[in-house]
Amino acid sequence: MSSSKTVRKVQVVSPVPADIDIANSVEPIHISQIAQHLNLTPNHYDLYGKYKAKVLLSVLDELQGSQDGYYVVVGGITPTPLGEGKSTTTVGLCQALGAYLDKKVDLFLSSTSVDCATYFSDIEFNVGNLKFLSSKYLLIIFTVVTCVRQPSQGPTFGIKGGAAGGGYSQVIPMDEFNLHLTGDIHAITAANNLLAAAIDTRIFHESTQSDKALFNRLCPPNKEGKRSFSDVMFKRLEKLGISKTNPDDLTPEEIGKFARLDIDPASITWRRVMDINDRFLRKITIGQGPDEKGKVRETAFDISVASEIMAVLALTTSLADMRERLGKMVIGNSKSGDPVTADDLGVGGALTVLMKDAINPTLMQTLEGTPVLVHAGPFANIAHGNSSIVADKIALKLVGPGGYVVTEAGFGADIGTEKFMNIKCRYSGLKPQCAIIVATIRALKMHGGGPAVVAGKPLDHAYLTENVALVEAGCVNLARHITNTKAYGVNVVVAINKFSTDTEAELHAVRNASLAAGAYDAVISSHHAHGGRGAVDLGIAVQKACENVAQPLKFLYPLDVGIKEKIEAIAKSYGASGVEYSEQAEKQIEMYTKQGFSGLPICMAKTQYSFSDNAAAKGAPSGFILPIRDVRASIGAGFIYPLVGTMSTMPGLPTRPCFYDIDIDTTTGKVIGLS
Amino acid sequence: MSSSKTVRKVQVVSPVPADIDIANSVEPIHISQIAQHLNLTPNHYDLYGKYKAKVLLSVLDELQGSQDGYYVVVGGITPTPLGEGKSTTTVGLCQALGAYLDKKVDLFLSSTSVDCATYFSDIEFNVGNLKFLSSKYLLIIFTVVTCVRQPSQGPTFGIKGGAAGGGYSQVIPMDEFNLHLTGDIHAITAANNLLAAAIDTRIFHESTQSDKALFNRLCPPNKEGKRSFSDVMFKRLEKLGISKTNPDDLTPEEIGKFARLDIDPASITWRRVMDINDRFLRKITIGQGPDEKGKVRETAFDISVASEIMAVLALTTSLADMRERLGKMVIGNSKSGDPVTADDLGVGGALTVLMKDAINPTLMQTLEGTPVLVHAGPFANIAHGNSSIVADKIALKLVGPGGYVVTEAGFGADIGTEKFMNIKCRYSGLKPQCAIIVATIRALKMHGGGPAVVAGKPLDHAYLTENVALVEAGCVNLARHITNTKAYGVNVVVAINKFSTDTEAELHAVRNASLAAGAYDAVISSHHAHGGRGAVDLGIAVQKACENVAQPLKFLYPLDVGIKEKIEAIAKSYGASGVEYSEQAEKQIEMYTKQGFSGLPICMAKTQYSFSDNAAAKGAPSGFILPIRDVRASIGAGFIYPLVGTMSTMPGLPTRPCFYDIDIDTTTGKVIGLS
Repeated sequence: MSSSKTVRKVQVVSPVPADIDIANSVEPIHISQIAQHLNLTPNHYDLYGKYKAKVLLSVLDELQGSQDGYYVVVGGITPTPLGEGKSTTTVGLCQALGAYLDKKVDLFLSSTSVDCATYFSDIEFNVGNLKFLSSKYLLIIFTVVTCVRQPSQGPTFGIKGGAAGGGYSQVIPMDEFNLHLTGDIHAITAANNLLAAAIDTRIFHESTQSDKALFNRLCPPNKEGKRSFSDVMFKRLEKLGISKTNPDDLTPEEIGKFARLDIDPASITWRRVMDINDRFLRKITIGQGPDEKGKVRETAFDISVASEIMAVLALTTSLADMRERLGKMVIGNSKSGDPVTADDLGVGGALTVLMKDAINPTLMQTLEGTPVLVHAGPFANIAHGNSSIVADKIALKLVGPGGYVVTEAGFGADIGTEKFMNIKCRYSGLKPQCAIIVATIRALKMHGGGPAVVAGKPLDHAYLTENVALVEAGCVNLARHITNTKAYGVNVVVAINKFSTDTEAELHAVRNASLAAGAYDAVISSHHAHGGRGAVDLGIAVQKACENVAQPLKFLYPLDVGIKEKIEAIAKSYGASGVEYSEQAEKQIEMYTKQGFSGLPICMAKTQYSFSDNAAAKGAPSGFILPIRDVRASIGAGFIYPLVGTMSTMPGLPTRPCFYDIDIDTTTGKVIGLS
Repeated sequence: MSSSKTVRKVQVVSPVPADIDIANSVEPIHISQIAQHLNLTPNHYDLYGKYKAKVLLSVLDELQGSQDGYYVVVGGITPTPLGEGKSTTTVGLCQALGAYLDKKVDLFLSSTSVDCATYFSDIEFNVGNLKFLSSKYLLIIFTVVTCVRQPSQGPTFGIKGGAAGGGYSQVIPMDEFNLHLTGDIHAITAANNLLAAAIDTRIFHESTQSDKALFNRLCPPNKEGKRSFSDVMFKRLEKLGISKTNPDDLTPEEIGKFARLDIDPASITWRRVMDINDRFLRKITIGQGPDEKGKVRETAFDISVASEIMAVLALTTSLADMRERLGKMVIGNSKSGDPVTADDLGVGGALTVLMKDAINPTLMQTLEGTPVLVHAGPFANIAHGNSSIVADKIALKLVGPGGYVVTEAGFGADIGTEKFMNIKCRYSGLKPQCAIIVATIRALKMHGGGPAVVAGKPLDHAYLTENVALVEAGCVNLARHITNTKAYGVNVVVAINKFSTDTEAELHAVRNASLAAGAYDAVISSHHAHGGRGAVDLGIAVQKACENVAQPLKFLYPLDVGIKEKIEAIAKSYGASGVEYSEQAEKQIEMYTKQGFSGLPICMAKTQYSFSDNAAAKGAPSGFILPIRDVRASIGAGFIYPLVGTMSTMPGLPTRPCFYDIDIDTTTGKVIGLS
């Protein structure tokens, strides 16, 4: 009996080649094999080509009774504009856990003379983690699933490039990961813009028609002259307190209330979206065609991942829940101040139909053949920046007890992990055992007072030579993230993402500072250069941290206090000594409270480059007053989002965008130049 | 040995139920089975769920040596706004040919005692049309593939509803057909809008930078201080007649020519697109954000299917050809009048990468289990309105000699069939044997002088009771379509799409008029009510027509004459006695001729409701002067398009759009209310 696994040991090369070259050097495993190793049968998923499959939500119903695995969230310290390698760490850790540290069952069978089922028939094991590839050949165990966000195509063609990880820690095939995937963002764009078209068209039609004419068109008589309400109309009727089911019974006053939404154009918060970095759409005027009769309006496009529908996808827990959330998204107010929803416009059902496949997470694989669920990618800025609840839930059931699900939270822990805990976990009911904080010597030096780090410009000398003092000074940033994260009741493991220029003394300083600040452990990880093998120590630390947690999850704030109290609790965790509200913010808080939305969690829209509102304030600033410029709400997704400063929701293209290098080899069909 | 086929005989019900109910009453066959019946192995396609697969273009290379089947194009008479059932006839005919008239090999095996391969080992047959499901069980032959366009999602949620056919002649699953499909239109939207963003951003960056600064950014020095051109830049250098390969060798003048595109904003013809009926985007102003520094510009959104990229997809013949066409799309002129292309902007390769999966047609099935290839759906208005060349080519190889490929051409034969012949067949090199003209008693009555037919309003009494004289008078329209179509050297079969209100005498009158006008045959077809069984006579007529054609394909005009001569040849076929050009049209013709584009075929943008430019002129108007308001060009797709009157390229939503009825049953996951 010999040991055998289908996970792939990748031969690493030094210096590390370009990401696309590493990705292309490996033949991906057919995704049905990855699925099979997770105990998924073809009924559980839909293939999208050979290397992607959508795992159907029904898996969750089927596994309802089974136990979850360990749940690990990956956050980071306050980053430089270059990013500190959270995605790469997430992938590398999973490669370590799945391909090197698969400790649960160490029996692999390649003998043809023994039947697996017979062999294991008297061994007690957790079926969720075992799989007979056939009755004779192979037994495979995966104890880990990586959960990551789907990247926006905007940055892929703009400045940043793709988001599949890097070096020897990547999701593959990286072109399929970065482009289209299984169409979820396209579905979001379509749904978002259908709603936008419905808003402007409705205002237009209302402006030219009497209540009665509107009503006649909304509830037209059939051939027998009988009118009826469509199903979605009953939602509006219920909201208006009208319990009649026959349109002919409505009084003229009820007809007016029902048929005329009377949307105040100035109140519309719903914008159109596009998954492109198109800065010229940041502010536009629409409706200038002669047929639109002067109903012009100023509005804007956001990038698709900033759509509330993306946040809904990330936070929903079932198809029925998604239908509900999409229908209750608020697009603005009526002139009398009532919130107007997608269902008021009759379009909540159609939006759900457009999103019905998007709700299923996409299964892919790492370079080393461990499974990855890619799902949702809400803006980490005006939204909560975490991948989906349903992907995490499915993954936790698939790995089962003793297995690991590693999920990434966008930006630094002050934003990503905070929203993961207070928004995502609140809606999912899940509790992580371990939170990772990714740190780099580079970023810590910046926090310690190093010169500014600017994307596209060469790094200052300070970042390339040893400077322990600078690192030690910068650890105040790391320490505050550790303290804040630990307060949720999880064990914090610091992952020091090692660069070739880092020195032993520098790395040692970070480890010391981490433990002093209360980290469960702090580990140096070289997954970028070595893949899973480089993250084995991190994997072991995470395993221990997960096995040794005893506390319940503690939120930063309860839901049943006022909006301001919640904002202030978060501000305090940033180090602020107080909060200042603009007049507009005060007005909005008052309005949302009046509209009954004050019980929602808070999703701060703040710069990721500082704990404070000032991106230049590095380290661990304190004593500042956090200014709240405005307060908005994503009612369908389920959060209030205060704006700290101005948030751009539509990136631009540089003079020489990434697309200059991207092409296709028309003989092989391979994508070239994608980074 | 008993006869057995997997094609499905659907039990028909009278009166015909709603389309979605018929579609939902049938369990679709797994698409891998449909593929297998076409001799496709899993290497030949990528699954997209259980009922869709993308057939890879490599199939075409593999089958290069094999012979084509018969090629049938479906056009129609000048339609009413209700449509005359071209799609339904296309699907119904294929169900008849595939499920009822499979005449090539009539031996089906269900005996378990005989091995198929052995049994047929000494029979000479065309392997392209045979398939052993297993060594023992079943032999299936398909002799027909339907090729149809992918519908736009705009109308699906707007007024018209879906486009999967109707009654017992449908493509299923109809929700998957109508929504997202395999993402091709989403890919087009993404590619189109990436190019649009590249245009405006380039103008912006050029406005704020010197030639040298632009050049420095376009060709930045690497770490060693060396500059290089990206591959796509060599296309521009070649166009400029610069053969240098080292950026440092360029003279300041060459640097200016290379780096500054100097786009004239007023000349930009490239618009953004969205697959939504969003009338408020028909005319907009962009660039009003403060960071865009006043570079505002008036522009518009079209519906995605009107994008030139859709026309490229429909007319391309290979991946290399698509790369070429996308790169040479002209977006406007420089201030000195030179055409500016996608490759000048450095984005042709990225556009191809976005479109690399879209080039593969999607395999689906009819209600009766015959195969369908869905691919491309260019606007039948400003573009050529036909499905893709690659789908037709693959289908012709797959059915092989004696098999049938039935492809639909949008709108009436004056537009759809004309463009099929003169544009699509010109680029593909394919020759149809038979052209179908679909006629309805309803439309013929309208052409004979019946009252106006208006969508959404009840039909006039004249259309519901017998009126042979009105039908006979209307046959002038049909007769001209027959004459025009016959002139291409194909046999014309008239398919009279039977409605329940049609009478024998009326149907008889059409048949007589058709034969008198030179039709090869004219057949009554009841495929809407009866599926394939209702189109058996039509199928037999088409078989005979295909087997008895001897002439070569004759185009309406040669390519090597002037733009005006070509326009005039087409105008003559409409019945016009002359053509009148606006000043703008004259100017554009002169410009395109000067730019070297006069050798392209012509794609008339004309109302589909009349042979003439006047939608109210029914029947067969003649002696009119056809006005050409403007002339535009799709250089990448490969045609010049004169505008006859104003063409809307962005539909709107009515007061009560289709989406009011569309929802999802959250317990079963089924789509409801889609029409």
